[in-house]
Order: sequence, then C-alpha cells, then structure tokens
Amino acid sequence: MRVKTRPGPITRTRIREINGSVARDRRDDLATEEPLEIRLTAPDGERRTVAITMRTPGHDFELAAGFLHGEGLVRPGGIAAIAYCTDEDLPPEARYNTVTVHIRGPIPDLPALDRHFLTSSACGVCGSASLDALHDRCSPIPDGTLRISPDLLYGLPEALRAAQGVFGKTGGLHAAGLFSAGGAPVAVREDVGRHNAVDKLVGWAALTDHLPLAEHVLMVSGRASYEIMQKALAAGVPVVCAVSAPSSLAVELAKEFGVTLVGFLRGERCNVYAGEHRLLMD
Amino acid sequence: MRVKTRPGPITRTRIREINGSVARDRRDDLATEEPLEIRLTAPDGERRTVAITMRTPGHDFELAAGFLHGEGLVRPGGIAAIAYCTDEDLPPEARYNTVTVHIRGPIPDLPALDRHFLTSSACGVCGSASLDALHDRCSPIPDGTLRISPDLLYGLPEALRAAQGVFGKTGGLHAAGLFSAGGAPVAVREDVGRHNAVDKLVGWAALTDHLPLAEHVLMVSGRASYEIMQKALAAGVPVVCAVSAPSSLAVELAKEFGVTLVGFLRGERCNVYAGEHRLLMD
Repeated sequence: MRVKTRPGPITRTRIREINGSVARDRRDDLATEEPLEIRLTAPDGERRTVAITMRTPGHDFELAAGFLHGEGLVRPGGIAAIAYCTDEDLPPEARYNTVTVHIRGPIPDLPALDRHFLTSSACGVCGSASLDALHDRCSPIPDGTLRISPDLLYGLPEALRAAQGVFGKTGGLHAAGLFSAGGAPVAVREDVGRHNAVDKLVGWAALTDHLPLAEHVLMVSGRASYEIMQKALAAGVPVVCAVSAPSSLAVELAKEFGVTLVGFLRGERCNVYAGEHRLLMD
Repeated sequence: MRVKTRPGPITRTRIREINGSVARDRRDDLATEEPLEIRLTAPDGERRTVAITMRTPGHDFELAAGFLHGEGLVRPGGIAAIAYCTDEDLPPEARYNTVTVHIRGPIPDLPALDRHFLTSSACGVCGSASLDALHDRCSPIPDGTLRISPDLLYGLPEALRAAQGVFGKTGGLHAAGLFSAGGAPVAVREDVGRHNAVDKLVGWAALTDHLPLAEHVLMVSGRASYEIMQKALAAGVPVVCAVSAPSSLAVELAKEFGVTLVGFLRGERCNVYAGEHRLLMD
C-alpha cells in the first residue's frame, strides 16, 4: 500500500467487507495520512523545524502558512517563499513531506512547538519512517488466541454508547472502550480529545496491572488515526474497532504490526482493513 | 462561566437555541476542556514537563500514565506515585490541572514533547491562563458590520458537503469551509485532522492577501475546540459554525474575544453560544 510517488489525498487498499455473516473482498479508498515537517529558513541561512504534524497531503503550503499564522510566528507579509524539500537523495515518498518556509526576518524565538512526538530525520519525514521508529519500542502483536465473531463486533457500538455518561451521548465527547473477548465492557473513558480517551484506558490498564491487553478489544467512537493505533499497539491490543473510517497510515500500521483493524462498524456490517485472521467466519 | 473550583467533566452555560426563526434562551451543558500539564519527577529531584494537552477533567492520573506508556517514556512498573500539584498559592481552577508522576528511574532523555503549543506557567496551567496568553497576540474581533440570518446558517452544512470531494462525503475526512457574508463558499479544505483543515483555509487567506477574514463565516464539519477557535481568532473570523458541539473553552474564548459561535447546526436549528448580536432575527 505504501505510496511510492508523491502522496495524494486518497490511498487505495483492499478490504474485507462483512455484511451480517457474509464476507467479500473489494477495493476501497482511504484518506491519506502522512507526516508533514514545517521548517523555517531565515535570510541568514538559519533553519528550524517548528512542527511535524500528521496531515492529508494537498494544499501543504497553505497548511504551513496557516499554521505559522495561527501560532503567531510569522505574519503574512513575512513569508518570502515556500518550497518542498525535494532533495534527489530522498526516497520519493518523503520528498513532498517537508515544507520549507523562507521568512523575511530572523527565526522567531520559540519554545518546543512539535505538535506530535515523531522521529524527525534530516530533511524528509514519511509514514514508513514513522513506522520504522515504532519498531524500536513496540513489538508486533502475536497471533495469539483471541478470535471474535462478527456478531460480537456488532454489539460493541451500542455497548459503548450504553456505558457512556448521559452527557457523552449528546455528542459532546469522544468515547473509547475496552471490551473482553466475550464483548463485555471492561472500562470506558470519555474526553474532548479522542487520543486522550485512549490514553485514559491505557493508563487504567497500566495502573491496574492489566498490560499487555492481549485479550481485549478497543472500540473508539470516531475515526482510527495513526496516533490511536500507535497507542493501542503500545498497549498490546490485538483488535481495534472504529465507528468511522481509518486513515491510510492507521491501516499500514495495523498490517505491519499484526493488529486487526475494523472500521465503519455500524449496524450489522463492518470493514476489516487488516488482521482478518482474528475474525471467526461461519 | 469560569470554573472556580475543581473542574468536572461538564460545564454549565446559557445558550440561545434557534428553531427555524424562533429563538429561546436556555441552560445547556458543555464538555469541559482544560489544559493538563504532565510532569515527571525523578528520585534525585529532577523535574521535567513532558506534555501539556487539552483534555476533559477526570481520570487524569490514568491519562498521564497512559500518555507516558504510549510514548514509551515510562514502563508501568516505573511509576512510584502520581499526584496533583495542589499548591495553596495556585488559583483553585489551576490546582487540578497539573499532574506530577514520580518515577523510579532518571528522567528519560527526550526531545520536545509538548503536544500543543500553550503557555506553560510554573506549576499550574488553566483555561484562563491560556486565554490570557492569547491576548498577547490576538485582538478581540470588532463588532463590525457582518450580520447573518438563521436561514443563511441553515444552508451552510449542505454547501460544505457539496463543496467536498466525493471521497470526503464518505466520512474519511474532516472539512472546513470559508463562506462569504451571503453564504457563498469561498474556499473549502479537507484533512484527516480538523485543525489542519482550518490551517489550510487560514493559509489560503494569508497567501492570497485575504486576512483578516472580517466578512467571512467559518464552518467546520465536526466539533469546535479551543484549538479551532484560536486559529479562527488569529485569522479575524467573526462567526464560527460547527455541525457538532463546542467545548467549554471554545465557548469561553468566543465570549472573551467577541466571536459568534454556533453549534449543532443541523437542519433548521442551531445553538448560539456567544456573540448573538451578529444573528439577524425577525
């Protein structure tokens, strides 16, 4: 699935669509998620990376300019030029993931600005490098013994909603839940940030000596991004389910680390993006 | 609205609910959004702030432990104790926004980890401090001339969907759109990250000399968080609309800086959380 050329907003993949108890394989489109490194270069040649953010490729110069404006780092008239860092030495998939903003004044004095914690290589970040960096501290999920039926999956969204507070049901909060292999809710947490809801679950497991979560299913109320999958992987969760869509990098991480990733889990249907072997079919 | 004691997950506020052309004021609940500072303390007394993240109060120790585990910074057995930083000198609303994790080993060597760029004071961050810091670089939005009717608002969600790519309509991407005072789409951007979609719009405006966006309405496909509001404010946008709920800190920012904030904009109804004077009622 790895994009070998300039990444576009859509990444094609193969999925297993399950309707009731019937499965069929088909192609599907994913929203591309790739890191973007935003660098400043001053007239005197000084350089500084100010952010690495996961984004969907497209309108990258606008993203850089808008980010700098929003943080109050560069005024609109302060930008002389914006360019990709297209060194020939870089692998093709990394060339369009670094944007250099040439500013008219000196590099502003700024504290740590990195939005997310990602390994920053020289000039050129990419999804593959992000996954490589994960290998240093996370092991692939063993095949293990956990196997689940589609019927069990179909009950999770309602079980998650039932476990949410009355307020959460109004749509003000993201929810994440840990479920047993039998589909029983073990812990449910809510937060305005979906990554925080997952952090709270992993923290519950860490503080109550439940890690790794080798026999658990994680269900999130929204989408599955790289960040969510990375947290699940660090906690050893073999099955991750989302009500909405996964990103391209979430699917890539799931494939590379042996995580079962289920998306669009609604009613009696779902899409399986990776780790189909943990789904018990008739 | 400012929480004067230990913040809970829900913040009460007063809103103006508009159904068709009928408005009524009522109380409503918001998901609380407050910063949390996560600090490490080693046995030798060395300290380090590793993250400041916006979150919904509750299960904060789990959030800290889960964040540290997910980033590979501290193993579960490496935590000796977790405590709030409840200095008597701190204002009450800040006391429960700093968590200190006492670890058994030395502070790990780590690059910049701050998840979001927020002013970090000594011991104690809070929403008010975040807003105070914004005053240093953002001016309140002038009352100005922009006035909009509910009917114009009701057309925005469909106009946003119509302007999205075919793929975006499938739910894989967040969308953000800038609309003219007459409701015409000016620019629409999509991204896996909602903050990136807004950055791209602001960057478009910065690079095409459209700042400040004093005569524009910003519409986002999801929720309105502090981060979204801060970006809108920096761009001078007087009206922000969201399909879903705003957070408590988003509403507080809107009130303090004179932004009109509309949420749950669906069908022929919406909630107005701040800046009602820009809504033209019969």
